[in-house]
Amino acid sequence: MNIIDIIVKKKNKESLTKEEIDYVIEAYMSSSIEDYQMSSLLMAIVIKGMNEEETINLTKAMVNSGICLDISSIGNVVDKHSSGGVGDKTTLIVAPLVACCGVKVAKLSGRALGLTGGTIDKLESIPGFKVDLDYEDFVAQVKDINVAIMSQTDDIAKADKKIYALRDLSATVESIPLIASSIMSKKIASGAKNLVLDIKVGKGAFMKDLKSARELAYLMKKIGIYYDIRVICLLTNMDSPLGNNVGNSLEVMEAIDILANNKVNDLTILSLEIATYMVMLGLNISKKEASDLVLANFNNKNAYHKFLELVKYQHGNLNALPKSKYIYHLKARQSGFISDIDVVKVAIACKQLGSGRTSLNDKIDYSAGLILNKKNNDHVNVGDEIMTIHTNLSDISKIDFNVFKIQKERQKEKPLILEVI
Amino acid sequence: MNIIDIIVKKKNKESLTKEEIDYVIEAYMSSSIEDYQMSSLLMAIVIKGMNEEETINLTKAMVNSGICLDISSIGNVVDKHSSGGVGDKTTLIVAPLVACCGVKVAKLSGRALGLTGGTIDKLESIPGFKVDLDYEDFVAQVKDINVAIMSQTDDIAKADKKIYALRDLSATVESIPLIASSIMSKKIASGAKNLVLDIKVGKGAFMKDLKSARELAYLMKKIGIYYDIRVICLLTNMDSPLGNNVGNSLEVMEAIDILANNKVNDLTILSLEIATYMVMLGLNISKKEASDLVLANFNNKNAYHKFLELVKYQHGNLNALPKSKYIYHLKARQSGFISDIDVVKVAIACKQLGSGRTSLNDKIDYSAGLILNKKNNDHVNVGDEIMTIHTNLSDISKIDFNVFKIQKERQKEKPLILEVI
Repeated sequence: MNIIDIIVKKKNKESLTKEEIDYVIEAYMSSSIEDYQMSSLLMAIVIKGMNEEETINLTKAMVNSGICLDISSIGNVVDKHSSGGVGDKTTLIVAPLVACCGVKVAKLSGRALGLTGGTIDKLESIPGFKVDLDYEDFVAQVKDINVAIMSQTDDIAKADKKIYALRDLSATVESIPLIASSIMSKKIASGAKNLVLDIKVGKGAFMKDLKSARELAYLMKKIGIYYDIRVICLLTNMDSPLGNNVGNSLEVMEAIDILANNKVNDLTILSLEIATYMVMLGLNISKKEASDLVLANFNNKNAYHKFLELVKYQHGNLNALPKSKYIYHLKARQSGFISDIDVVKVAIACKQLGSGRTSLNDKIDYSAGLILNKKNNDHVNVGDEIMTIHTNLSDISKIDFNVFKIQKERQKEKPLILEVI
Repeated sequence: MNIIDIIVKKKNKESLTKEEIDYVIEAYMSSSIEDYQMSSLLMAIVIKGMNEEETINLTKAMVNSGICLDISSIGNVVDKHSSGGVGDKTTLIVAPLVACCGVKVAKLSGRALGLTGGTIDKLESIPGFKVDLDYEDFVAQVKDINVAIMSQTDDIAKADKKIYALRDLSATVESIPLIASSIMSKKIASGAKNLVLDIKVGKGAFMKDLKSARELAYLMKKIGIYYDIRVICLLTNMDSPLGNNVGNSLEVMEAIDILANNKVNDLTILSLEIATYMVMLGLNISKKEASDLVLANFNNKNAYHKFLELVKYQHGNLNALPKSKYIYHLKARQSGFISDIDVVKVAIACKQLGSGRTSLNDKIDYSAGLILNKKNNDHVNVGDEIMTIHTNLSDISKIDFNVFKIQKERQKEKPLILEVI
């Protein structure tokens, strides 16, 4: 087999066989296919696409490139995944909430890259919190307290890791089959048998429109069927940030506020919905039954105590959450209703404040970030505090915080949860 | 400027600006753009195309990446180029023929790669023939005897050289704008002001159909206009090999046979036609006048003597042309008319005999190759010798020489010269 012939085939929009895809992955991992050949093939895939069979075969080849966790001894484990959003800290709320409903949550999470945050960075903002667990300890913890969250290790879906790094540098990220196989290969290798996927749609997401989000959802469900994994996809709005806080320790604080004080915002609503589907899958009960169970455990603060238990179990010290040196307050310069919060600008501003990464080696400032005191359709008067900026930088004059759009009239609101597939 | 944004632009079929193209070429030459980024961009260009302006700007950037030969002191130099065919040794015939008509020919040629032969390898099969000349000696030789052929040096269109090597390995060769800018950048940097291009069309050529060959021709003429170069494009058939001999020293022998004995085959006809257009441009005369002059110098053997003079001037010894250890004869197993000679199979067989290269470091067996004793629409009887195989290999049982298709009836023949643009 020959990589040139394979690239030419894909360039001509022909389908690749299982043997060809296996060859590509194996040869790329053994470096007999060069990066420049892989990126040429990836660009051909981005433009010409892959069908379901190719995508399943690619997923399979990537799963086989690393180890597969056997977590079957734990029982009926439920996993969740978000395709990446700004201010998305649902895992911090959902994992303990689902766990105290009696569902096992063995969650491998990733770090922030690009504009999206990473659960592992958020947890690491809690001093002492251990994200690098042995698989044995990880499994033991889930058996013990129903929930554990650890950093995804390098030996899972190795090919996905190598290819993802290349895609990031060769402008070949935007491809539904490539995104589907990347997400699913990691989830399959992590051993989950039930999966709730939160696919973000909108200005702050990879999927800019509902059509492509639907396509991604159906493709991932197809891969799920092949691997005997039950998959439920929520298509949710990412035109503006989720919740009020963006930035690692600030997001932990917001999660605590929601769990401890039952604060309700868009993040709360989404978290309850995701938790409901996870409990439904995990306990094999109806959505209504799952919803009741989730709400009860949320309202009675069981979820909050489970969160504290989780943090303690993984050696985190919430009393020592880092705080920024400077806090700036941004005030409204006109009155009216918030009609839009520019999610990309928010993400860029936070990254510039130090809360994100450009490359995986970049150091994060865990305390940096911002709080959006107002959300869409909130009314503001001139002089109202609409944003709080947390930073260790003495000079933030070059950062663009002009993220709010204010209009005279209330706007029609897009629903938060667009579709469930 | 940022390579990722540029790749995304091209992926989305947007046009790149002059500044963006200049940046890509400069940054690639200084290695701040990686091979895997360049190949991703090249694949996007292959699939999404480039417009005339982009192609001219790319050509310009590649010309500027190396030195430009100043051969203006020689006078009105005429160059030729073939887009690459099997058995194509026209330069060996055309260069001396045009030179003895009084036209200056300062020709930089290339080596074989892939399935196509290279003039420089053919000349190097003549023991002693010096292809690496100083530019000074090269110019002096043209002034002295009207003709010199040397190997293209590394300092001409440097970016083209680096990009071409990458295209070859990343399956991004097939692109009309990339082919046009590659050919033209070398020709522009070589200093020619008149150019006859032989664009091969058919099974054995990059251009598989007349439509794409026309597109390539018009694009190269446009680049020519921009650089004040007069360009004439011949679109010629490459469904079967040109002439009878394929393989380096065998091709030199065929050229000599044509020049010394006025042998007439398809190669002779094409060579006379190309020579006519070169003389027309070089002497600023009509096609009829040029044709008469070319024919006279061909028939009176002036061209043959000019060829001998050229070889002697560059220290070649024709008496020492290498010969193969073994000669095999292939006989017809059925009678009828030759209806097709599989040009790709011929090229592959010759390469396997040792006459070609897979990588630029491969060593060539100059004496290896084959002679097609019969051509399309020749009649053969069972047992007629249809092919002679010249080789130093004792075992050629694995090579496929089954290149002839024989049918009962004569076939309609495609013209050799399809169009002149």
